[in-house]
Amino acid sequence: MDADAKTKVAVVGLGSMGFGIAGSLLRGGFRVSGCDLDGDAVARLVAAGGSGAASPAEAARDADAVLTVVVTGTQTEAVLFGSAGAVATMRPGGVVLSSATMAPALARHLGQRAAAAGVLYLDAPMSGGAARAAAGELTFMASGSPAAFARARPMLNAVAKTVYELGDEPGVGASFKMVNQLLAGVHIAAACEAITLAKRLGLDIAKVYEVITQSAGNSWMFENRIPHVLAGDYSPRSAVNIFTKDLGIVGDIGREQVFPMPIAASALQMFTMAAAAGMGGDDDASVARLIAQITGLKLPGMETE
Amino acid sequence: MDADAKTKVAVVGLGSMGFGIAGSLLRGGFRVSGCDLDGDAVARLVAAGGSGAASPAEAARDADAVLTVVVTGTQTEAVLFGSAGAVATMRPGGVVLSSATMAPALARHLGQRAAAAGVLYLDAPMSGGAARAAAGELTFMASGSPAAFARARPMLNAVAKTVYELGDEPGVGASFKMVNQLLAGVHIAAACEAITLAKRLGLDIAKVYEVITQSAGNSWMFENRIPHVLAGDYSPRSAVNIFTKDLGIVGDIGREQVFPMPIAASALQMFTMAAAAGMGGDDDASVARLIAQITGLKLPGMETE
Repeated sequence: MDADAKTKVAVVGLGSMGFGIAGSLLRGGFRVSGCDLDGDAVARLVAAGGSGAASPAEAARDADAVLTVVVTGTQTEAVLFGSAGAVATMRPGGVVLSSATMAPALARHLGQRAAAAGVLYLDAPMSGGAARAAAGELTFMASGSPAAFARARPMLNAVAKTVYELGDEPGVGASFKMVNQLLAGVHIAAACEAITLAKRLGLDIAKVYEVITQSAGNSWMFENRIPHVLAGDYSPRSAVNIFTKDLGIVGDIGREQVFPMPIAASALQMFTMAAAAGMGGDDDASVARLIAQITGLKLPGMETE
Repeated sequence: MDADAKTKVAVVGLGSMGFGIAGSLLRGGFRVSGCDLDGDAVARLVAAGGSGAASPAEAARDADAVLTVVVTGTQTEAVLFGSAGAVATMRPGGVVLSSATMAPALARHLGQRAAAAGVLYLDAPMSGGAARAAAGELTFMASGSPAAFARARPMLNAVAKTVYELGDEPGVGASFKMVNQLLAGVHIAAACEAITLAKRLGLDIAKVYEVITQSAGNSWMFENRIPHVLAGDYSPRSAVNIFTKDLGIVGDIGREQVFPMPIAASALQMFTMAAAAGMGGDDDASVARLIAQITGLKLPGMETE
């Protein structure tokens, strides 16, 4: 197949998620161009067989699709519509896949701006970590027009294990992701509260993990995050700052919609407290370390602190 | 086998859990004597092949084991050591299996009183609903002396699928159950908060259930309780009042140990609010109905309210 005949995909943002996605796209036979503020990340993409670019506009030149793999809605708007944004240079009629967790209203707004610029837009927040990104096994909670889904399908096939098609306009995917993040954040904070209570009560916390994961108190997050606490390893698989952001968006929606969410609000305060204590860039299970520090407990890895 | 040679077990409390346990014991070949404040429940046991008694003392006369299947620690102490209590009449050297969720200190205290009275004591809080009780498939989080475990083993074999042996004295089982109930209560309240937010955002909540149960936001309780909300069925499988009680005990421990638990405290307030609104005896998923009433949403079953 002639290289120029291949579909060109721009990946904007080459952190661990974006780099994994780019790799899955390369394996899927796409031409991949990428950009990132971190030049080392761009060099890694080039070494892996992609091409590097200095800006979203350069990465997206004549691209059939642009995947934004940045953290926030504000960043997404900037890389798409800013002064060196991708939408101005991508192929007319191409498709944007936006993966950041953001307020549903902002997703709708970005979809409208994309339509006005003559490109399709898929509101496609994702879940699954860097390992699943690299394996092409992400889950997307997506919404957009049938045309946007059709155009995005080959790329989604290369990077996703599961694609939920949740509605025919942007904002629905973002809403589903919000609901998921509310639960995920509360469950992490509750897991940290519970495991530190267990320590305070003098229990063998490895045994607590074994019993709870087989009991009605289990959650996906308890099962996934408490091993970080048991290992005393707070290197970030997903950072505290992700949840101050995502539960912050949940809180914003709550005020905007006049909809009370006291459990989510409490969980946000715990992540905010962890960030305030200097753990914002650490693994989100750091809420357990924070509670231990406050209450004078020694969790694994804290014996010498 | 001569009936008199069979091991006699007294079951104190014949609600749906106690009745299910009594049935599993009868199938296991035990002589079962039961009592309950509800005479109809006692009559059902007699119809099933057990014998009925008017008091814990009468049910426990010469019993080799006493299973208390009441709701609170206070009730447990009363049925064991009150004026018509079981311990005074049971066989010396027999074993008490206490299933109520209670503070670890109270479990230790009851174990000491049992020892002083010459009987063994197993701190054996359980999980699993009425259906699993009837099937002999409960899970026990148990602690007690090796002698207590040995004496209780035949009964546990008849009623349990899983028995965690968590320590050699009463209180450890109660502590594990506390940790489980903290998580279970928070997860129910968070599930109710999330599903009502989804409704407020205009999402198809059956689709939300499908997506979340496959995502990182899932919990055992979300998966188990949200179907009650989707069906608009708040008949109590487990009632709101169970969690005002259990999260109340968690809060008591927090104050006693000077150990902050803000997420559990928020969840307790949600159950308390549901109870205050008249839903204390209804299914614990009623927190969703409460939030919907407050915010003017119509969940399934509320269309005509």
